[in-house]
Amino acid sequence: MGNFRRVPVGIVGASGYGGVQLVRLLMEHPEVELVYLGGESSAGKSFGDLYPHLAHAVNLPIETVEPEMIAHRCEVVFLSLPDGLACQTAPILVEKGCKVLDLSADYRFSNLATYTTWYGVERSDRSTVATAVYGLPELYRDRIAEAQIVGCPGCYPTASLLALSPLFKQGLIVPETAIVDAKSGTSTGGRQAKVNLLLAEADNSLTPHNVTRHRHTPEIEQICSDLAGHEVTIQFTPHLIPMVRGILATVYATLRDPGLVRDDLITIYTAFYRNCPWIKICDSGVYPQTKWANGSNLCYIGLEVDPRTGRVIVMSAIDNLIKGQAGQAIQCLNLMMGWDETLGLPKLGFYP
Amino acid sequence: MGNFRRVPVGIVGASGYGGVQLVRLLMEHPEVELVYLGGESSAGKSFGDLYPHLAHAVNLPIETVEPEMIAHRCEVVFLSLPDGLACQTAPILVEKGCKVLDLSADYRFSNLATYTTWYGVERSDRSTVATAVYGLPELYRDRIAEAQIVGCPGCYPTASLLALSPLFKQGLIVPETAIVDAKSGTSTGGRQAKVNLLLAEADNSLTPHNVTRHRHTPEIEQICSDLAGHEVTIQFTPHLIPMVRGILATVYATLRDPGLVRDDLITIYTAFYRNCPWIKICDSGVYPQTKWANGSNLCYIGLEVDPRTGRVIVMSAIDNLIKGQAGQAIQCLNLMMGWDETLGLPKLGFYP
Amino acid sequence: MGNFRRVPVGIVGASGYGGVQLVRLLMEHPEVELVYLGGESSAGKSFGDLYPHLAHAVNLPIETVEPEMIAHRCEVVFLSLPDGLACQTAPILVEKGCKVLDLSADYRFSNLATYTTWYGVERSDRSTVATAVYGLPELYRDRIAEAQIVGCPGCYPTASLLALSPLFKQGLIVPETAIVDAKSGTSTGGRQAKVNLLLAEADNSLTPHNVTRHRHTPEIEQICSDLAGHEVTIQFTPHLIPMVRGILATVYATLRDPGLVRDDLITIYTAFYRNCPWIKICDSGVYPQTKWANGSNLCYIGLEVDPRTGRVIVMSAIDNLIKGQAGQAIQCLNLMMGWDETLGLPKLGFYP
Amino acid sequence: MGNFRRVPVGIVGASGYGGVQLVRLLMEHPEVELVYLGGESSAGKSFGDLYPHLAHAVNLPIETVEPEMIAHRCEVVFLSLPDGLACQTAPILVEKGCKVLDLSADYRFSNLATYTTWYGVERSDRSTVATAVYGLPELYRDRIAEAQIVGCPGCYPTASLLALSPLFKQGLIVPETAIVDAKSGTSTGGRQAKVNLLLAEADNSLTPHNVTRHRHTPEIEQICSDLAGHEVTIQFTPHLIPMVRGILATVYATLRDPGLVRDDLITIYTAFYRNCPWIKICDSGVYPQTKWANGSNLCYIGLEVDPRTGRVIVMSAIDNLIKGQAGQAIQCLNLMMGWDETLGLPKLGFYP
Repeated sequence: MGNFRRVPVGIVGASGYGGVQLVRLLMEHPEVELVYLGGESSAGKSFGDLYPHLAHAVNLPIETVEPEMIAHRCEVVFLSLPDGLACQTAPILVEKGCKVLDLSADYRFSNLATYTTWYGVERSDRSTVATAVYGLPELYRDRIAEAQIVGCPGCYPTASLLALSPLFKQGLIVPETAIVDAKSGTSTGGRQAKVNLLLAEADNSLTPHNVTRHRHTPEIEQICSDLAGHEVTIQFTPHLIPMVRGILATVYATLRDPGLVRDDLITIYTAFYRNCPWIKICDSGVYPQTKWANGSNLCYIGLEVDPRTGRVIVMSAIDNLIKGQAGQAIQCLNLMMGWDETLGLPKLGFYP
Repeated sequence: MGNFRRVPVGIVGASGYGGVQLVRLLMEHPEVELVYLGGESSAGKSFGDLYPHLAHAVNLPIETVEPEMIAHRCEVVFLSLPDGLACQTAPILVEKGCKVLDLSADYRFSNLATYTTWYGVERSDRSTVATAVYGLPELYRDRIAEAQIVGCPGCYPTASLLALSPLFKQGLIVPETAIVDAKSGTSTGGRQAKVNLLLAEADNSLTPHNVTRHRHTPEIEQICSDLAGHEVTIQFTPHLIPMVRGILATVYATLRDPGLVRDDLITIYTAFYRNCPWIKICDSGVYPQTKWANGSNLCYIGLEVDPRTGRVIVMSAIDNLIKGQAGQAIQCLNLMMGWDETLGLPKLGFYP
Repeated sequence: MGNFRRVPVGIVGASGYGGVQLVRLLMEHPEVELVYLGGESSAGKSFGDLYPHLAHAVNLPIETVEPEMIAHRCEVVFLSLPDGLACQTAPILVEKGCKVLDLSADYRFSNLATYTTWYGVERSDRSTVATAVYGLPELYRDRIAEAQIVGCPGCYPTASLLALSPLFKQGLIVPETAIVDAKSGTSTGGRQAKVNLLLAEADNSLTPHNVTRHRHTPEIEQICSDLAGHEVTIQFTPHLIPMVRGILATVYATLRDPGLVRDDLITIYTAFYRNCPWIKICDSGVYPQTKWANGSNLCYIGLEVDPRTGRVIVMSAIDNLIKGQAGQAIQCLNLMMGWDETLGLPKLGFYP
Repeated sequence: MGNFRRVPVGIVGASGYGGVQLVRLLMEHPEVELVYLGGESSAGKSFGDLYPHLAHAVNLPIETVEPEMIAHRCEVVFLSLPDGLACQTAPILVEKGCKVLDLSADYRFSNLATYTTWYGVERSDRSTVATAVYGLPELYRDRIAEAQIVGCPGCYPTASLLALSPLFKQGLIVPETAIVDAKSGTSTGGRQAKVNLLLAEADNSLTPHNVTRHRHTPEIEQICSDLAGHEVTIQFTPHLIPMVRGILATVYATLRDPGLVRDDLITIYTAFYRNCPWIKICDSGVYPQTKWANGSNLCYIGLEVDPRTGRVIVMSAIDNLIKGQAGQAIQCLNLMMGWDETLGLPKLGFYP
């Protein structure tokens, strides 16, 4: 192995589902070494106290979150914290030279006024925000490769934007007709004890939530607007599904050209994602199942055109915790480090 | 009880989920007596062979399907057969004087050409079709009360139409903008051994099916057209959800009057369904969960208006096997017999 | 109906799953009227705040728990509180003349030392305890009929004891060989926000808990000892199953007489439960499924004998929230009031 | 990599769950190349027809099963066929020099009379059977390393035997007291369309099956007898659990020495499995959850001693499709090829 050296990596906020996915994926990544786990409420515990099944594999303690110390030990830091906390830590890490991948909403918005409107947090880290890149590699690969700080997309926006992007980028649809009806497993809600996420409540049931006002809406709109070249408003409705993992976004929009057929759309999407190893466009007549993506960093996209209504229907399926969270962050890291975009990431789902 | 006499009732096609729900509900109905169970493939078995847990309560055999014999023994007959079979039996039963409630698609269409286009079955029972009434009591209560044969709606159309009807009837929306994104538990697929409905396949997964071409589409369109007074085309997309029971329909449409707010819609829906004991309009800001309806004949409807997009979002939740199938058929029977519309039907779900 | 009067009934602790089942069942009971709902933490809210889907049907507020006031308004009081609280309220209610049905552990033990050892609560209500009857009607029907206060069994003990009782009562087994391997849906854990009961944690998983030390152990042993006429020790292991409702107890024991065969056991059990309308003994070779019982007050019991090992295997299935909790309490009430044991209780499960 | 050459590997019976796991795991194995997929009923299809989500990754067709051709192309062959079929193909493959890993029951039994009694198949391949080794590496590592044909254990026996082996090998228990109460997800039933495995039937339910007569019983007994040095009879009861993957075996047995405590057992098990990288003994007071193992080749074992009853309770959790099937077969292959036992196998579960 000669003078091979693994890149030292840390995770702040290791106790949640984002954290445990990062731990698992980073331990199997050939170029990095996990050297630091941090958390406020769980500081002092071992990681095995939180996830006993990993006790044999991860013998790192959860440490307190001291940015200088973290920057001293880590070249790369993943921030997996609730919205509104990363912005307190990231500027210091960036200043100290760390590469930072933030999984929260804090660095997803180029316009901080939008962030403050939807998240209710005032910000004073304008200069850091100005250098942050939105971490959706399929759209911003080159900018991510040169970024020092990346704001990784939310799970719903990832599924939604991968379905919507070719439509907006190519100007294929009437913009104001775009509707995203999204469905997610309950792990989207995190590892927090809430009554509505109990198995006894959420199993064998299905419910919409935050209708017309989910915080992922402005994030989707920001990117669609960027692609369209003008302001775009999106109808976004999330639903809680009685399953652990997986998101399906069903997207509806009216085509500008009513003559386009399904196979045209498949050709367009295939071309759009030609260089994207994690995007799989389904064959004609095949629709994605969330289970296909579970455990992998893949996004499956199915397409349909309804000649009766003139609409395109795009269906995209991801694992909300991998491509929708931890896997995508590592995909960004790969780009930032100049590694292959697929390095260390699971390529096949764990079906069934 | 003096000369109290229960009405003799039969079920053709008692072996499926529609059948077992009918059996359970009819056994608890105070005015009827279940006297006949019929089925082709299961003839000769006892009902307890198919559903051992009911062996102690139902000691009827499954008999062959002979319309004359059935008409001789039953005043009311429920047909719970695959599409395309009821039309062979119903005309005889009607002719012999039975009241008939068909749970298949055969008597849902006033225009047989539409039926034949979508179901691929030629029909020769025009006169029977001409007298059949679409069995959605909230819309056609009076006609059902006078009908001898009722074509009970499908599960998806029930949820969809209860959400859509006030919009079309009152002319509140731009008709061509109506989209129904529907989600159903796998019991919708019936008690048939199919690989895609296995727990190992369908659990922890989510998938759309029959996109742009589900057979329930023309049924929804027929009724919406009737309400609107002109031809209406609906975008309808069903999804299979990893749960046993329940349907949620999420309906999107653009309001004609962008000044309407959520509470206006709640007022309108409450008025529209004022005399409908099975419809519950949710309070402002409350969205229905399918579990609320499970086990009952109720339909919960939640409303939201998005001032940013000018759309109304209507969410309706039912138990696909009760209000979406067997319960609704019994609700129709109650009307046909002049009984109270709620008689013998479960009023409270079995939460959690 | 002449001077028909419904019996006024109250529930203390109406916010949990026991409470919501009681509310639903009591509302459908023909002889009672629900007049009071009480709770400490939820006092001041309406029941519809806790369970929005029942808002249209239950317009009672949650009131504070004042025993004198409750006794003034109710003839019958159900106590659905955490262990250790009922004993503070029940003595006053009893003294004031109410009939009391306690769903907690407080009045299940004739020997308070056992209670205090396992529950860690000192007791000062010896005289009330002395009059309490263990509320398993299949064993103590006559005593329940004459009781003023009943300690209703836990869900695990109900399933376990209905499987074990004929074996101990008839002396069929070697007592110290009895093992109960029990499996329960997560609603057994109540409507409390706990991480291990989240859908994301508990779904697609299975785990034992409180092995060798579950609090239901001494309760099972107390009744088995009573039936056997000597002290009996039971091995009891509960498991959490990824489902909402239902308990299956799989019981193993070595037969004293190795010549007994399966049909002998079926005969013995059928005779033992001859007068028990809620117990259904499965046919030879049929094993119960928990789903059969869901939504009903039934207990299904299947039997097997292994001639290779000399063991009997008894499998009993109940709905943990009905026969294992609220339904059984109402069954006891029916006996206490001299009504039919099945009055107002669901006789058929809501399969599938 | 110079003259690095991957070992050509084939799978007969690639269409089922065993097959798809093998495909996924072998594609990620660094030393092998998947060159052949065979199947009778699916011959002529592509693998992507059966599993569309893998179409992009696996472009092998399903071919007919011709042993000579297979032996010509493959050095190693996995047989993933229904019981009773492998014995028709394996002898030819062995004779032609292939290493064979059979996932069915055909080569698990040293005594063919036992096999024929339980499986109803007469056998004529005695010489092949004589050389076959039971593929449980934790017990027979050295013999597997030298075998040409391995009969891989069933999923239930794997979980059961890993829990039972130290007890029998060390003579710690009274042999005839051993009881295995096992619980498995429905993928154990394979990818076959059966009504009882439908989500609508199996979800939210729990049921025992094949009580006293499951075919995995003699397999467990054979190995326990081998370890004990005398004939042993085991009580084995499997249950179907509403989840996709995972098995938990709860084992009960009476200790010979009532003075042993929990920590003694933990010490004994830890020592017994000292050289077994896939076995993890839980800390004192920790019990395994099946989800911990899902997606990995790990087996988690928890231990408890009940001083009241003198019994040990052992709980073992595996992924039925990995350590219980495909993963274990590859673990055996690693040994047969002289590779590290953990090569190419998933070391961390995909929690949650």
